Amino acid sequence: MNMQEKTKNKGNIQQGKASIAFPCSPWITAAASVAGKKEGEGPLGQLFDVVEMDERMGKESWEAAESAFQKKTAELALKKAGRTPEEIRYLFAGDLLGQLIATSFGLMELEIPLFGLYGACSTMGEALSLAAMSAAAGYADRCLALASSHFATAEKQFRFPLGYGSQRPSSASWTACGCGAAVVEGSQVQADAERVPLASVTGITTGKIVDFGLKDSMNMGAAMAPAAFHTIWQHFKDFDRSEKDYDKIITGDLGTVGQAILLDLLKEQGYDLTGIHMDCGIELYDSEKQDTHAGGSGCGCSAITLCAYILPRIQEGAWKRVLFVPTGALLSTVSFNEGQSVPGIAHGVVLEHVETGSGKQNGGKYGIS
Amino acid sequence: MNMQEKTKNKGNIQQGKASIAFPCSPWITAAASVAGKKEGEGPLGQLFDVVEMDERMGKESWEAAESAFQKKTAELALKKAGRTPEEIRYLFAGDLLGQLIATSFGLMELEIPLFGLYGACSTMGEALSLAAMSAAAGYADRCLALASSHFATAEKQFRFPLGYGSQRPSSASWTACGCGAAVVEGSQVQADAERVPLASVTGITTGKIVDFGLKDSMNMGAAMAPAAFHTIWQHFKDFDRSEKDYDKIITGDLGTVGQAILLDLLKEQGYDLTGIHMDCGIELYDSEKQDTHAGGSGCGCSAITLCAYILPRIQEGAWKRVLFVPTGALLSTVSFNEGQSVPGIAHGVVLEHVETGSGKQNGGKYGIS
Repeated sequence: MNMQEKTKNKGNIQQGKASIAFPCSPWITAAASVAGKKEGEGPLGQLFDVVEMDERMGKESWEAAESAFQKKTAELALKKAGRTPEEIRYLFAGDLLGQLIATSFGLMELEIPLFGLYGACSTMGEALSLAAMSAAAGYADRCLALASSHFATAEKQFRFPLGYGSQRPSSASWTACGCGAAVVEGSQVQADAERVPLASVTGITTGKIVDFGLKDSMNMGAAMAPAAFHTIWQHFKDFDRSEKDYDKIITGDLGTVGQAILLDLLKEQGYDLTGIHMDCGIELYDSEKQDTHAGGSGCGCSAITLCAYILPRIQEGAWKRVLFVPTGALLSTVSFNEGQSVPGIAHGVVLEHVETGSGKQNGGKYGIS
Repeated sequence: MNMQEKTKNKGNIQQGKASIAFPCSPWITAAASVAGKKEGEGPLGQLFDVVEMDERMGKESWEAAESAFQKKTAELALKKAGRTPEEIRYLFAGDLLGQLIATSFGLMELEIPLFGLYGACSTMGEALSLAAMSAAAGYADRCLALASSHFATAEKQFRFPLGYGSQRPSSASWTACGCGAAVVEGSQVQADAERVPLASVTGITTGKIVDFGLKDSMNMGAAMAPAAFHTIWQHFKDFDRSEKDYDKIITGDLGTVGQAILLDLLKEQGYDLTGIHMDCGIELYDSEKQDTHAGGSGCGCSAITLCAYILPRIQEGAWKRVLFVPTGALLSTVSFNEGQSVPGIAHGVVLEHVETGSGKQNGGKYGIS
């Protein structure tokens, strides 16, 4: 009896029903990343399309700066895809700020029908999922999935004004400054594609809210690890796969503290992700030299790492199949100050290498399940 | 040359591409509404499933109370649909609070995969659109679309603590206290349906961000009217229809000020919505007796009006085809205090009467386009 049968026999339908395997997988045909100065100085610095030395972007406020990051990234992604805004059917986008103001003011001029999303730092996973669903169903020739964060807007939103110079514990993460955007195209337009796609989106596993009762907003890795665990575990069940079916399983911003918890939780269930697990928050900075403590965080962290580092590795075939699992901590200053816990959510997206020339979408060492 | 051809000839692809007509329309099979005391005392008071006399819901904070509204409404919608949470594939939900905390803490216990949405007061339209897209594409047997707002959490979030007793101008609206939830089922499971569906969702028109540069957060009707205008105008173009094809065109929370602007803008384009237009914000309260000024607002305003009043009218056949257009004002206290404008967004959903007994989904005086 395999795990899926076990799950079914428990009578818990939900456990087998959080995923979609796309019969005809959409492609990510272009992606762009605009990062801040600190991110540019980190290990991935050479990979970003643009590194902004002025994180204020010449604007009057940090929020306007984050909007400018979004606008620049979206325009760059479109340029790389060789498309105009009019050729994008839907925009799936979000940020960390209350009422998504970075998105509202950043993407207004594109005049693309918008689905505003909030998944905390998991937003790029949520956006990619809905964009792939729309493209695969034929609702859209192509969509744009986008997420951003900005260190300064997030500090102001969630913590203290920067000038206060408050101390950060070693479990704290550093909100990344940057924006990532990916163009997702449906199979019906793939015939037109002249360039090699970055990856195909072959499936998704959508997360539920998971709350282990942690209340420390300065240790979001620990708060999000159970959500990442649940989504990865659920994904393995739904697709009848294990870590052996992936070259990399990449979480968003668990950082070093959350990573240890995730690996422990999965090991208890018989999955050993040592050597396969990677976390965007850990990759983005040199934590010792850059004083970022547990790692990077924010929607932008996984979004820029995806667009600048992960997708190109998949495109070149270094990784044939990746499970990308951005993670979000669902808190606000109001909920935190009222003594609420910090629940987490994580959305999984399966990204696969596309063999060039063969016309096969899902080639490589694994077939599509 | 009809309007669609005209649009195409302009070379503006976007103008003809903001809508989806579902070939096999999903159904709304159940809906629930839980309203606050003031809403219960208004003209629609008798129609709500539950009127909560204690808007604090016995909780320690207003935010926890709004979460309790969500939980109660979701559970009631499931009960009315005869379904368990395990039978709901996706949850599309949101609220007005920063980082969606009413949703995170309200719906956690359902353990349903969640797409968190932010569309300001247009959220019920966004949620219904994505739920219908998922159900129609076969991604989900059934989804739950939900949105809430709470007068006290919104006052705290956007304005001043209630105790300050600040004055409100006559253009201000009153954030509704309540939550609405609708169960959307795909055609593949409709054969199982024993009860008469409330409506079929035959199409959607997704809004873009529209900014006319208004900066008055106490006059959100005026700020949102251009977005409502654009979505309705776009909808007429995309579907090659006019106001004559609808029994009602119902906006979310324009109020009296926004309604006048919307009707003027549409009249300039040759559409006369007099007698056909209705606004949830105007319907919800007796503005004179209840001192609500321009009308109701908040995600909950259109959500409870939809679930308690609009859907039953469609079910009984009093209205055969309705365009439901919740409207959102995209601002936060941060954007407002930084002197930004208040852009708007509006999402259109076509709701049609389902003829009972005939097996026809889209009967009545209009065929499906």
